[in-house]
Amino acid sequence: MFDFTITARNNRARTGVFSTIRGDLITPVFAPVGTQATVKTLTPEHLKDIKATLVLSNTYHLYLRPGDDLVAELGGLHRFMKWPRPMLTDSGGFQVFSLSQTRKIDDDGVTFKSHIDGSTHRFTPERSVRIQENLGADIIMAFDECSDPNDSEYSRIAMERTHRWAERSLKAKRRADQTLFGIVQGGVQPDLRAESAKFIASLGTPGIAIGGLSVGETKQQMHDTLDVVTPLLPENKPRYLMGVGTPEDLINGVLRGVDIFDCVLPTRLARHHSAFAPEGRLNMMNATFARDERPLDENCDCYACKTFSRAYIRHLIMARELLAGTLLSIHNLRALIRLMEDIRVYIADGTFEERVPDLLRQWQGNVARHKKS
Amino acid sequence: MFDFTITARNNRARTGVFSTIRGDLITPVFAPVGTQATVKTLTPEHLKDIKATLVLSNTYHLYLRPGDDLVAELGGLHRFMKWPRPMLTDSGGFQVFSLSQTRKIDDDGVTFKSHIDGSTHRFTPERSVRIQENLGADIIMAFDECSDPNDSEYSRIAMERTHRWAERSLKAKRRADQTLFGIVQGGVQPDLRAESAKFIASLGTPGIAIGGLSVGETKQQMHDTLDVVTPLLPENKPRYLMGVGTPEDLINGVLRGVDIFDCVLPTRLARHHSAFAPEGRLNMMNATFARDERPLDENCDCYACKTFSRAYIRHLIMARELLAGTLLSIHNLRALIRLMEDIRVYIADGTFEERVPDLLRQWQGNVARHKKS
Repeated sequence: MFDFTITARNNRARTGVFSTIRGDLITPVFAPVGTQATVKTLTPEHLKDIKATLVLSNTYHLYLRPGDDLVAELGGLHRFMKWPRPMLTDSGGFQVFSLSQTRKIDDDGVTFKSHIDGSTHRFTPERSVRIQENLGADIIMAFDECSDPNDSEYSRIAMERTHRWAERSLKAKRRADQTLFGIVQGGVQPDLRAESAKFIASLGTPGIAIGGLSVGETKQQMHDTLDVVTPLLPENKPRYLMGVGTPEDLINGVLRGVDIFDCVLPTRLARHHSAFAPEGRLNMMNATFARDERPLDENCDCYACKTFSRAYIRHLIMARELLAGTLLSIHNLRALIRLMEDIRVYIADGTFEERVPDLLRQWQGNVARHKKS
Repeated sequence: MFDFTITARNNRARTGVFSTIRGDLITPVFAPVGTQATVKTLTPEHLKDIKATLVLSNTYHLYLRPGDDLVAELGGLHRFMKWPRPMLTDSGGFQVFSLSQTRKIDDDGVTFKSHIDGSTHRFTPERSVRIQENLGADIIMAFDECSDPNDSEYSRIAMERTHRWAERSLKAKRRADQTLFGIVQGGVQPDLRAESAKFIASLGTPGIAIGGLSVGETKQQMHDTLDVVTPLLPENKPRYLMGVGTPEDLINGVLRGVDIFDCVLPTRLARHHSAFAPEGRLNMMNATFARDERPLDENCDCYACKTFSRAYIRHLIMARELLAGTLLSIHNLRALIRLMEDIRVYIADGTFEERVPDLLRQWQGNVARHKKS
């Protein structure tokens, strides 16, 4: 269990199989985010339809509501939300640190106030692991400190704390049916990232996460950081780039040896009436779609594209009908999952690296318009 | 086409088959309401899963947005919203008369202001039929005036206008693949209702609607009105009780010879976090459900009940996750569709009438708690 077998390589990019008790994960993989034990607006049937294999859920949110003890009492997260396939929970670290005004960090842990009712709570590495054991995801994360990438002085402090907390997280872990990944931090400083990669690799966890990216650094800094980190990680363990990303981030991440991604972008874009499409991101409120009988993307095999016209989806948006968000979520998630499926084929046939410029060009419109918004 | 064959009788209650070009409707039938070309939060697949056979959509709403011309251009409502089974549109009459502050009625039609942007529009019987032809539902309605049931003097005026408009609607109708139902009005005055029933029956439409109920009259008045009207209608034509209703209304309506019902209640209750259940209507926000592993209704075969616990649905509500509304809509609609399926079995085996007290008792909790809210 939790073995990673590499099935094909294309320079640093690779395809692989990561085994869990709930089935094998074929990598590279994009995981939809189900923050509050639901991928917003979708049923588990929709998730199976779009061929999602891994779903992420958030420890911070579920700890606060409905409570990890309640989820445990009801048989764990898989049973609670009826997602029978592999799941991953974050450690709560990132969410807690995002509450910049209402949390205090010390060497032992973090005290923070709930965004729901302002009540005071405390996470430590041990507490985070205990909560994640209650939730019962297949892949859980060490408790880490995600620092501002532009605060170079603080990055060392946060990184060293992350390392101590990774050791404590590992020590606290009890369940054999879960695997815990250590998290590489170090901001955008190559020396710190290298140090962190070596330290986390030395812990011997079955997978390694790369944290603190997509939090304010430039695309170039993200690429440079990956160029430093992944070569220092063991080949035979999956690498998980947390909270990333856009289609271009997925392509660039795989190119640099990343295996697992998650991001709220597809469902967030859906709530903002946007769809991934070959001609670039579509703002589906646009009047040009009022009589457009084409699907969102003629090449897409999702339920929304196989069934409905752009005109209908625009009507739903204009009429404030919630089905619009469901259909756009299905499509946007499927678009990224299809991208990963394509990338796996390209890696297997050895053409991925040479196709990257084309792939990036193909998704360019989606990226550019996303940045402007 | 549009033949009605009665397959079983139990005193005034009956089961039957109404033929349309999109398939046979087995009656008695409850139609979910898709006001704006979508049954709120549900995909057409969900509707098929709950065994919906007839869906209603609203002429007033679709005329304003996206516009009936646009729907026609895109191939009609069935194709637009991907509902391949029978559909029914109302005439817009009820919605327009509900805009009591912003509409003016004259003998030729009604001038009204859009609830969306305040723009001025005019419906006449001819216009309503033309819009409904553009939308393309299988069953369309004559343009009628729905008056306040407690304004007995005005009821005659509205009824007589409704009769003239029914004749004009019939004359305006052109499409052979659609059937138009006349509408019986007359408030809660037995003499007017009898007069209206005879007049509308004399028009020879393939089905007859009973309008102006569930708009402020008492339950007793509704029953008394049905007791006057249905015996005066031809046996071999389906009767459609518009905008009704609650589970008890469906039972009492079938008992009095009604064949078709529609109501927004199941989806509206879903948006207000309520579920039909054997022990009475459940307010799913209630803390007693926090750890309740049972489905909403152990006897229900819907996706929500077969898949999720009350605890999970309550969590979704507390976390403001939209999936809650989807699951509750699926369940509440399926509950009424199942009730109709059961009633059809009881009519066929001749036990419906004797079961009515039990059925009403069974649904009492749902009714009582609904009235209080």
